[in-house]
Amino acid sequence: MAEEWATFGADLHLDLRDAGQGTGLRAALMDALREAVRSGRLSAGVRLPSSRTLAADLGIARNTVADAYAELVAEGWLTARQGSGTRVAQRSVPRRRTGSGGPGGQGRPGGARQGAAAARRARARPTYDLKPGMPDLGSFPRAEWLKASRRALTAAPNEAFGYGDPRGRIELRTVLAEYLARARGVYARPERIVICSGFVHGLSLMGQVLRARRVREVAVEAYGLEEHWRLLTRSGLRLPALPYDELGTRTDGLPGMKGVGAVLMTAAHQFPLGGALHPDRRVAAIDWARASGGLVLEDDYDGEFRYDRQPVGALQGLDPERVVYLGTSSKSLAPGLRLGWMVLPESLVDEVVELKGHMDWTGSALDQLTFAEFLESGAYDRHVRAMRLRYRRRRDELVAAVAAHSPQTRVSGIAAGLHAVLELPAGQEPEALRSAAWQGLAVLGLNRFRHPDTAPAQDGLVVGYATPPDSAWSGALAALCRVLPAP
Amino acid sequence: MAEEWATFGADLHLDLRDAGQGTGLRAALMDALREAVRSGRLSAGVRLPSSRTLAADLGIARNTVADAYAELVAEGWLTARQGSGTRVAQRSVPRRRTGSGGPGGQGRPGGARQGAAAARRARARPTYDLKPGMPDLGSFPRAEWLKASRRALTAAPNEAFGYGDPRGRIELRTVLAEYLARARGVYARPERIVICSGFVHGLSLMGQVLRARRVREVAVEAYGLEEHWRLLTRSGLRLPALPYDELGTRTDGLPGMKGVGAVLMTAAHQFPLGGALHPDRRVAAIDWARASGGLVLEDDYDGEFRYDRQPVGALQGLDPERVVYLGTSSKSLAPGLRLGWMVLPESLVDEVVELKGHMDWTGSALDQLTFAEFLESGAYDRHVRAMRLRYRRRRDELVAAVAAHSPQTRVSGIAAGLHAVLELPAGQEPEALRSAAWQGLAVLGLNRFRHPDTAPAQDGLVVGYATPPDSAWSGALAALCRVLPAP
Repeated sequence: MAEEWATFGADLHLDLRDAGQGTGLRAALMDALREAVRSGRLSAGVRLPSSRTLAADLGIARNTVADAYAELVAEGWLTARQGSGTRVAQRSVPRRRTGSGGPGGQGRPGGARQGAAAARRARARPTYDLKPGMPDLGSFPRAEWLKASRRALTAAPNEAFGYGDPRGRIELRTVLAEYLARARGVYARPERIVICSGFVHGLSLMGQVLRARRVREVAVEAYGLEEHWRLLTRSGLRLPALPYDELGTRTDGLPGMKGVGAVLMTAAHQFPLGGALHPDRRVAAIDWARASGGLVLEDDYDGEFRYDRQPVGALQGLDPERVVYLGTSSKSLAPGLRLGWMVLPESLVDEVVELKGHMDWTGSALDQLTFAEFLESGAYDRHVRAMRLRYRRRRDELVAAVAAHSPQTRVSGIAAGLHAVLELPAGQEPEALRSAAWQGLAVLGLNRFRHPDTAPAQDGLVVGYATPPDSAWSGALAALCRVLPAP
Repeated sequence: MAEEWATFGADLHLDLRDAGQGTGLRAALMDALREAVRSGRLSAGVRLPSSRTLAADLGIARNTVADAYAELVAEGWLTARQGSGTRVAQRSVPRRRTGSGGPGGQGRPGGARQGAAAARRARARPTYDLKPGMPDLGSFPRAEWLKASRRALTAAPNEAFGYGDPRGRIELRTVLAEYLARARGVYARPERIVICSGFVHGLSLMGQVLRARRVREVAVEAYGLEEHWRLLTRSGLRLPALPYDELGTRTDGLPGMKGVGAVLMTAAHQFPLGGALHPDRRVAAIDWARASGGLVLEDDYDGEFRYDRQPVGALQGLDPERVVYLGTSSKSLAPGLRLGWMVLPESLVDEVVELKGHMDWTGSALDQLTFAEFLESGAYDRHVRAMRLRYRRRRDELVAAVAAHSPQTRVSGIAAGLHAVLELPAGQEPEALRSAAWQGLAVLGLNRFRHPDTAPAQDGLVVGYATPPDSAWSGALAALCRVLPAP
């Protein structure tokens, strides 16, 4: 999920993360543009997008782009003429080239060879990112966050700047308890909440706590994230998988799995299949936990985003003493905040806090206070509502495009969240992935998420529809449709 | 170090951390004041400090205090009269009391009994905090930080809100490399820097890396922080101690310690003794590391604060391939930011990054970008310069007060840092600590920092002089002087 591609047209890919070794964004942007010209990805005469457009696409200040353009004009890489915009300069002939160069050099044999090389490179780097797991980063509410930040920084008592409570700031835990109760049906008292740096942090703490309690096996779902499984196996845990059927994960099988001390679940919105766990199965999970003394680890990764029906409350509300609830702001706001939370059974609080204290104390107090302000002021609710509308529109467009171009393709898991599953005829997933790569489309196959114990049952693509910037969305949809079986 | 006491006079102690279970600071302050009145710590008729003074002492907004006062007046706990300030109300007689109560009740037998109980409670909670390890939290540059925050949030590219590089933001690593080279003589390329959440995080990662490399023993200094030692022993490492003499830690003994794979050192400013490692001993540490393939873990916790002589550069500059440099913003800015950094030998980068990625990815991108702005704009240099002056003045006042009240007491380790050692005659440390506790003075004994392998050599007190707010500083100094041997 770490890759972020900024795209304009289908031609120029600027990876500011790689390029940013210099001093700041302008230099990084200049490097990336120089490299694109040097390598032929941008050929002589090509018109660049306006600084406004590129700035919006990259999510950077317009002045940064304008300054970079101006300096590259001064250096001779670009030309700017009134009425004709900014273009790649006609460069003097490199020694190796045989063509005549100069004006009109574009489209000549040398240029064509450059173009082919550029096309090969373009295929190596995806143009469109439809991998799941990332929200729309361009919608981060910068102005509102800054406001909350100002209020938090002004109101913070001096002690907030000291070493903090390893559970996190009380201000945040207090408003979070109220929010989680209201929005997710979580029974959350502030003293049972532990702020962490995201789901991975929380799961890693739980893996260690379980091992310290001599748990040897944690049941997982038939489909899930390999990164999470690996984290638990690194703690020395074995991970048998529960089967999956039309009611969801077969938690009714838990009593038959001797040696299992906990189960990891995405109850509200199975990842990646997209269903909600059937009420009977929810009860079965809790019954098992009560009878066996086991724990349910509830990964509520995108509980805020539901479209066609009432929100499904968290499993945790059924029995707060047997469920560890794990939530984050990574899908609702941005992963870059590194703000997550665990709501713990009372009997686990001390163990988790002690373990966490050994590793890193706690996250930034200022971010926690800012997030508390952001929640308390209602800005979080407004943001989630706005994003729900945005994602729902994206989802509707995805469903419509697939229906128009490949009516036989079923789209499932669309009632909630930021991704959908496009079901493919048996055996067609590898070919669809190859075709996607050829189109410069980054998308993941459903079988990548299948647990090794689970037999292959369905081919498909897992499509994250939140990620592409608006300028790339229709192109991404079109590329996706070309990958699907024709009617 | 987690405790922070806000004090006015020597009467009222408000612990907003404990009290903050309600909704926000005002409620917490109200709870604390109610409790102080209820328990008799604030007796009827006592005049409270002005809202301005109390707000400054607690580092909170004046309005918060004024609002809390107003509500407590409305609730009948306090009275406010023009010209007479805010006072504790004469409450109606509690059933248990035998006195007449009412106006004038203050100073009567019941009041006196309450006073004695209050005095007992006051002894249980320290009035003055001179424990080492904490900077002046009231000096956190809120306005400058907010400015940097605004610039960072405005300039951040969209991808900054995504899952980041586990090494941390490139913008921060770039300016940090430049700063560390300039200010601490560290050889730091951005790709060798890993941002972490503080020293404990970095040391915990190193402990795991060393164990994975089959290192069994890490040599430590004769005096140090037990918390750090415990962290390494938790990774399964044994920690033999190096002796200490007038040239500093005897790194010349390292070649004779078979089985030691690394050494943990505070080379620039030994903690807590306060000396700088002699050049010969620096070279000896590096020579040992080169010859044996060992590593030096350099804890550069307060390298920025030197008063009487040229800064001592980091050991790391002598051999960046054999030294792991660990620094933080906890002493120079505030522990609450949770921002630290490791500068790693090239051969360790991948291992540390992989391990870190398993645990928590990386800290908040926004804080990292803000800190990068703060560094790059020169605000960090200005802040460090201002704090250096402030701490130097505190140190001078400490030295002068001790010279005046206890001329035979030697104050050592005063060339740098935020703490000093007050040397005591043999056997007098326990009595001095008891006397300090009686005075409501939180201070630590030197022997608390002694490694179990090290024979007792010197009694003393370790005094952190950065922590008390200005309003409490002269009281803290006076209490400290009463603890020391009279002339």
